[in-house]
Amino acid sequence: MNPDPSPEVSAALVVIGDEVLSGRTKDKNIGTVADFCTDLGIALKEVRVVSDDRAEIVAAVNAVRARYTYVFTTGGIGPTHDDITADAVAAAFGVELEVSDEARQILEDRYGSVDVSPARLRMARVPAGGTLIRNSVSAAPGFSIGNVHVMAGVPKVMEAMLEDLATRLHGGAKMLSRSVDCRVGESVVAAGLEAIQNAHPKTKIGSYPQIGRLPVYTQLVVRSTDPDELAAAAAEVKALVDEMHAKKNIKPGEDNPT
Amino acid sequence: MNPDPSPEVSAALVVIGDEVLSGRTKDKNIGTVADFCTDLGIALKEVRVVSDDRAEIVAAVNAVRARYTYVFTTGGIGPTHDDITADAVAAAFGVELEVSDEARQILEDRYGSVDVSPARLRMARVPAGGTLIRNSVSAAPGFSIGNVHVMAGVPKVMEAMLEDLATRLHGGAKMLSRSVDCRVGESVVAAGLEAIQNAHPKTKIGSYPQIGRLPVYTQLVVRSTDPDELAAAAAEVKALVDEMHAKKNIKPGEDNPT
Repeated sequence: MNPDPSPEVSAALVVIGDEVLSGRTKDKNIGTVADFCTDLGIALKEVRVVSDDRAEIVAAVNAVRARYTYVFTTGGIGPTHDDITADAVAAAFGVELEVSDEARQILEDRYGSVDVSPARLRMARVPAGGTLIRNSVSAAPGFSIGNVHVMAGVPKVMEAMLEDLATRLHGGAKMLSRSVDCRVGESVVAAGLEAIQNAHPKTKIGSYPQIGRLPVYTQLVVRSTDPDELAAAAAEVKALVDEMHAKKNIKPGEDNPT
Repeated sequence: MNPDPSPEVSAALVVIGDEVLSGRTKDKNIGTVADFCTDLGIALKEVRVVSDDRAEIVAAVNAVRARYTYVFTTGGIGPTHDDITADAVAAAFGVELEVSDEARQILEDRYGSVDVSPARLRMARVPAGGTLIRNSVSAAPGFSIGNVHVMAGVPKVMEAMLEDLATRLHGGAKMLSRSVDCRVGESVVAAGLEAIQNAHPKTKIGSYPQIGRLPVYTQLVVRSTDPDELAAAAAEVKALVDEMHAKKNIKPGEDNPT
């Protein structure tokens, strides 16, 4: 048996925060991390949103770090009592939480040594063996330990941390996609799409209707890491849609009158 | 031992969709379901986003339905081959998936019996023992089985289904909140906040700094189901903030000059 020539590089994201679960904050980090992973050829396989509860964070981090190449976390690394992510990740790895000299230096460079209060110093605590993730926005660093990358919850800070991380992660085969515009309802193309999906198991075909939009519009998306399979399946989807358009007298570029 | 006078009513949400994990679609349903739960006095405790993979959906649904009062799912209930949520939820419950006469009737009423193709009929399949969740937008129903409520992924359709569900769910003690505007950095109030949190264990105090905004601004949020505890803790937080504002010569209503 040959090894898989392009083993999948996978990831999970753990979003930590009562404010997301209460609805007070509308999360933007899931979409940003998803785009980041897709751009790097990393398959984001799972997201969990958990509360600011140590046992919940430990359980979620341990469940996903065993399964995926990378784990990202967002939230809970500020200076206040409700910021318990560093404690929880140290507990998940069974290591001590230590004040990092490097992180303390970063905070002192930004705020001056006098102004690095015990609360600010809380942001310099890193599990033993961890390395820092820098960010240019707030100075307070995140950290990486094992395959787990711990980032801030504030979107601008999180994005700056992803920039720092990007150069240190390696992606896999990049997922490619093609979309075909379809101006008949998805029920009309469902049987044909399923046959194309079955004939091209190395692709994944999705159907995304836009509800409430008239004329009817459905975007059909073919995804694959194999460019030849992608092209072949997308051509078949295009032919199917052209056939259905012709049956309903929808000419290219013309709107569906129903 | 007396029973807990207001046992917590809890919930989890399972978002099903490759398009969310790839970044192609930016999820809006998490925020909507979070607000819905908070309004009803239901504590949303966990969210999982999983791919269009039967085993993943079964595992996620079974993990959360054992733990929480309610489970909501969004996505994967359309007419195409990639819509496998109904199959997966039936498998999770170990029951057959059947075409529901009631759901078929709803589709026929909307589309006419001739136009209810095998693909559309796929949307009438409900696990044995399930009941329908109606929606006014697309007609295709969701369903409830046990404590699991299966809804569409398209936000407008999902919202219509929540409207239908709302009358059938019972909430618990409603979570109340008060927020205090703080114009010093969260590091400055961290020690005081922690002391207040420790003195009021029936509240949960969160600190939400706005990065990139000057003057410095942090929103401190106290939450509790107990109105007296809420008022007491919020008053202490307000006093703490007033004291810190006075120390930094920030007068009420005046912007922090740093």
